Amino acid sequence: MSILDIIAKKRDKKELSKEEIEFFINGYTDGSIADYQAAALVMAIYINGMTDREITDLTMAMAYSGDVLDLSELGEVIDKHSTGGVGDKITLILMPVIAALGIPVAKMSGRGLGFTGGTIDKLESIPGYNTGVDIDTFIRNVKRCGIALMGQTLNLAPADKKIYGLRDTISCTDSIPLIASSIMSKKIAAGANKIVIDVTCGSGAFMKNKEDAENLASIMTQIGKLSGKETVCIITDMNEPVGYSVGNTLEVIEAVDILKNKYMPKDVKHIIEELGSNMLVLAGKAEDIQDGKSKIMEAIQSGRAYVKLLELVQNQGGDISYIEDTTKFESAKYVIPIEASKNGTITELDAYEIGRLSCYLGAGRQRKEDSINPKVGFTFNKKVGDTVQYKDIIGYIYADDEQKAYEVKEQLQQDIMID
Amino acid sequence: MSILDIIAKKRDKKELSKEEIEFFINGYTDGSIADYQAAALVMAIYINGMTDREITDLTMAMAYSGDVLDLSELGEVIDKHSTGGVGDKITLILMPVIAALGIPVAKMSGRGLGFTGGTIDKLESIPGYNTGVDIDTFIRNVKRCGIALMGQTLNLAPADKKIYGLRDTISCTDSIPLIASSIMSKKIAAGANKIVIDVTCGSGAFMKNKEDAENLASIMTQIGKLSGKETVCIITDMNEPVGYSVGNTLEVIEAVDILKNKYMPKDVKHIIEELGSNMLVLAGKAEDIQDGKSKIMEAIQSGRAYVKLLELVQNQGGDISYIEDTTKFESAKYVIPIEASKNGTITELDAYEIGRLSCYLGAGRQRKEDSINPKVGFTFNKKVGDTVQYKDIIGYIYADDEQKAYEVKEQLQQDIMID
Repeated sequence: MSILDIIAKKRDKKELSKEEIEFFINGYTDGSIADYQAAALVMAIYINGMTDREITDLTMAMAYSGDVLDLSELGEVIDKHSTGGVGDKITLILMPVIAALGIPVAKMSGRGLGFTGGTIDKLESIPGYNTGVDIDTFIRNVKRCGIALMGQTLNLAPADKKIYGLRDTISCTDSIPLIASSIMSKKIAAGANKIVIDVTCGSGAFMKNKEDAENLASIMTQIGKLSGKETVCIITDMNEPVGYSVGNTLEVIEAVDILKNKYMPKDVKHIIEELGSNMLVLAGKAEDIQDGKSKIMEAIQSGRAYVKLLELVQNQGGDISYIEDTTKFESAKYVIPIEASKNGTITELDAYEIGRLSCYLGAGRQRKEDSINPKVGFTFNKKVGDTVQYKDIIGYIYADDEQKAYEVKEQLQQDIMID
Repeated sequence: MSILDIIAKKRDKKELSKEEIEFFINGYTDGSIADYQAAALVMAIYINGMTDREITDLTMAMAYSGDVLDLSELGEVIDKHSTGGVGDKITLILMPVIAALGIPVAKMSGRGLGFTGGTIDKLESIPGYNTGVDIDTFIRNVKRCGIALMGQTLNLAPADKKIYGLRDTISCTDSIPLIASSIMSKKIAAGANKIVIDVTCGSGAFMKNKEDAENLASIMTQIGKLSGKETVCIITDMNEPVGYSVGNTLEVIEAVDILKNKYMPKDVKHIIEELGSNMLVLAGKAEDIQDGKSKIMEAIQSGRAYVKLLELVQNQGGDISYIEDTTKFESAKYVIPIEASKNGTITELDAYEIGRLSCYLGAGRQRKEDSINPKVGFTFNKKVGDTVQYKDIIGYIYADDEQKAYEVKEQLQQDIMID
């Protein structure tokens, strides 16, 4: 077998065999296939596409290119994934709920990049929380209290990491087959048996339109089917930020408040009900979606999910007094109101723009090696559809740099559409 | 401007601007654009194609990526190029003819690779011939006696060299737009004003079928038009070797014999008449093609072309006694007859197969760094269409290794089709 023949085959829009895909992934991982050869093949895949069978074989080859976490001793592990967004604190809320309902949560999460946030950055804003515990501690914690949440310390799907990095440098990021296999390979390497995926769709997501989101969802469902890792995809809106807060500490506070039953944003309720009920059905812990939704809300209302959050934070070395009293979190230096420019109804709170500005304030990173500021971001009092009067406070900017705060305020007042 | 945008544009089958193509070529030449980025773009070009305007801009950008030979002081220089083949000694015959007819010949040629030979290797089989003379000597020789023929010592079209090497490693060699711009960029960098190209077509050429050859010819003609370097392409047959000999010394001997009017193979006559007459017309040295053809044959028959060959060899340090008496060339150790396997007409003398076997005997190189043996190869007494009797000698194998000679004989007896 030769990489030249494999490249030529895909160049000519032919279907690659499982063996050819494995030859490429193994060779690229071990360095015997060069970056430029991988680049040519990836471009040919981008342009000429892949069948579901090829995408599944690619996914499995990438999943097994490095460590594969064996979670079989924990029983049926249902993983949850989101394709990312702005203000997306769903993992922080949903995973304690799921754990409270008896499904083991052994989740590895990622960091934010660009305008989207990442769960690991959010967890690290809790003083003491160790996202880099060793695997034995991680599994012991799941066994003891049903939940553990950490970063990716293992060498999971290194082929995916290499190809992901390469795609970035050759304008091949937005290939739906490649996105699908990248997501699924990481989930499979992280030990998931069954997977529920929140496919975000809108300005603040990678999938900007419904058609792409549906296409991605359909491919991932198909990969799940063909690889024996049952997968359910839910498409959710990402045109405005999820919930009322954006920024690491601010999102942790909102997640805690929600689990404390202080309030429940409508969009958050919708997403956790949809994802959660499907996880319960997949795990055989709910009779149907309706039953699952009731169980999800009950776990929050009873306070059981909140207890799981406390256990999670405590197990990983976090200071739970911050969870018990979120006013203990250090605030940003400047908290500046955003006011309504006129009377009317809010028609747009553009998630992409808010994510971008939040990143500019320091909440996110432009490059992987950048550090972030957990304190900065936004809180909103209003969402799309709410009516406002001129000068009403729509939300607040949290910033450590006064000039940036006022720059962002000016931009945001223009971006928020009121009609 | 960013290479990412340029890659994305071609990925999406859009037309690149002149500036974008220059940005790519300059960046790839100076190393600021990486191999993997060039690989992705080349693959996108391969799959999505380029317009004639893009191909011309690519050609000019590559031509001007390094040294560009200025031959303006020599008057109108008409270059001749062949897309390569087996037994192709046309340059050795035609260039002295052209020089004899008053068109300055200042030609840089290449070496052979794989099953095809190269003029420089052939010239170097003449004892003393220096293919690496300095540019001043080269130009002085042209001025003094109208002809000089050397290897590529300058840094001509380095971008083409890099892209050519890359294409080899990413299965993008047989892209007709890329082949066309590669050929034309080298000719333009080598100082040609007008160009006549022999587009070889058949088993022993890179273009295996008429359609591809016509496509390549049409693109190169178009590049010539758009770049102001008038170009005429002639498509010639390369299903059997050109003339009666294959191998470096053997081909030099055949070229000398032809210029000495000893004999004239029908195919050689056709090719030199076609190419030569077009060169004469382009240079304004013939009224029309028919007039050009007569002049070409007259220059040979009168012995004037032979005199030019002697001058060329002498000027570049070659020992002309070998030209005057070709029996002085050292022969290969083993000269073994190839016999007809039955009575009939020869229907196939497969050029590719003969080129491959000649390379196996040592006449060619598999890799650029290989050395070659000038003495080995084949001579034929018969060509396709000739009738033979059982046991008639069709030709001879020239080899320095007895075992290889017999292996090749066995193979060749099978390959030569008689019906």
